[in-house]
Amino acid sequence: MPAADALAARLRALEDREAIRDLIARYGPAADSGDADGVAALFDVGGVYAVGGMGESQGRPAIAALLDGTVHRQLLADGCAHLLGPVAIDLAGDTAAARGLSLVFRWNGRNWDAVRVSANRWHLARVAAGWAVTRRDNALLDGAAAARALLAAG
Amino acid sequence: MPAADALAARLRALEDREAIRDLIARYGPAADSGDADGVAALFDVGGVYAVGGMGESQGRPAIAALLDGTVHRQLLADGCAHLLGPVAIDLAGDTAAARGLSLVFRWNGRNWDAVRVSANRWHLARVAAGWAVTRRDNALLDGAAAARALLAAG
Amino acid sequence: MPAADALAARLRALEDREAIRDLIARYGPAADSGDADGVAALFDVGGVYAVGGMGESQGRPAIAALLDGTVHRQLLADGCAHLLGPVAIDLAGDTAAARGLSLVFRWNGRNWDAVRVSANRWHLARVAAGWAVTRRDNALLDGAAAARALLAAG
Repeated sequence: MPAADALAARLRALEDREAIRDLIARYGPAADSGDADGVAALFDVGGVYAVGGMGESQGRPAIAALLDGTVHRQLLADGCAHLLGPVAIDLAGDTAAARGLSLVFRWNGRNWDAVRVSANRWHLARVAAGWAVTRRDNALLDGAAAARALLAAG
Repeated sequence: MPAADALAARLRALEDREAIRDLIARYGPAADSGDADGVAALFDVGGVYAVGGMGESQGRPAIAALLDGTVHRQLLADGCAHLLGPVAIDLAGDTAAARGLSLVFRWNGRNWDAVRVSANRWHLARVAAGWAVTRRDNALLDGAAAARALLAAG
Repeated sequence: MPAADALAARLRALEDREAIRDLIARYGPAADSGDADGVAALFDVGGVYAVGGMGESQGRPAIAALLDGTVHRQLLADGCAHLLGPVAIDLAGDTAAARGLSLVFRWNGRNWDAVRVSANRWHLARVAAGWAVTRRDNALLDGAAAARALLAAG
């Protein structure tokens, strides 16, 4: 009969992976419903969101401001969808990294164009409330080596 | 040593989330293989599927009929793919809600067009056989506020 | 109070599903970072990767060679993203099957085209190191019945 504490450790690893996947799955609905504070709340207090071609935002107010900015508001008005791909999660105790794609589709009056297709590397940490994003690096997959590097293992 | 009943409760929460994610992951393969009954079986007996721009279907026979209808059959003949995004799952005991994207790609003879990009809010309930969809609301992300609202938290 | 061995069996089923989902989630980042050996390592030693329109590769060296080949290298240089959809996993003890979509987006200088949209059926087995892909069948969703069949249940 397995010891309950061994089971608890296995369960916690699954819970951690589930919490991280859930956190990342909340980005798209928050972005596409225009919930700037909801996006910012996925990040840790001092979290950084570095968006390919749009500089780096640090802290929840700056991240919320990015989502409340002209570019994102115009996307919402045009009709947009932020699709996240599955993430490869590497868990290391109280921190983790996750690698995966994000795509932005925009309505063109007839169908939808993929106007951004990006690589993402998420850095995450266990915090009081569960897990939070400490840094998200994003880069367009337009042939640039730097974008490919974000997706590389290790 | 953690009590086994506390472990069982944590395990059950993970199982519920897994079952809900699995249920939603089965929509695409069922739709794209032309398995109308398979799509209908994801819904509870009196489940409702409200598709943006195509009205509302209630009950498994009506949902199967929608998938056996002209629009879907033509999509299958043209070459199509129903891609679901990750879902943000909010579990509340024996019911749950899930929010995420769905995209339909159609072969145009050269590559694939994103001909539908939609917001979805799924309502789910625990039933005898596991979990079932009690209602799925779907709306095109073409700039309409109603579509964005489906993705909003709470 | 639930018996610990019953809990362990439920936990193991969740761990298996998580391991399989994780394995498949690692395909995209490996492919898009040009990590041919990383892609090959997802497969069992004698694993087969049958890509629609590109024949069949058996064994890790052959699979790595496919990823190091002209077609894939040109895609990487152009700017590409291999997006995997969610998978419907059917677990059967020490083997499993998973069904889902894969999409390849390519930068065209202005936005991204969906240049491949495919059905996939993954066959997996429990091996010493965890889980591995024993066979992946892939076919373009361009209206061909064979592609639709890969996504069918059972």
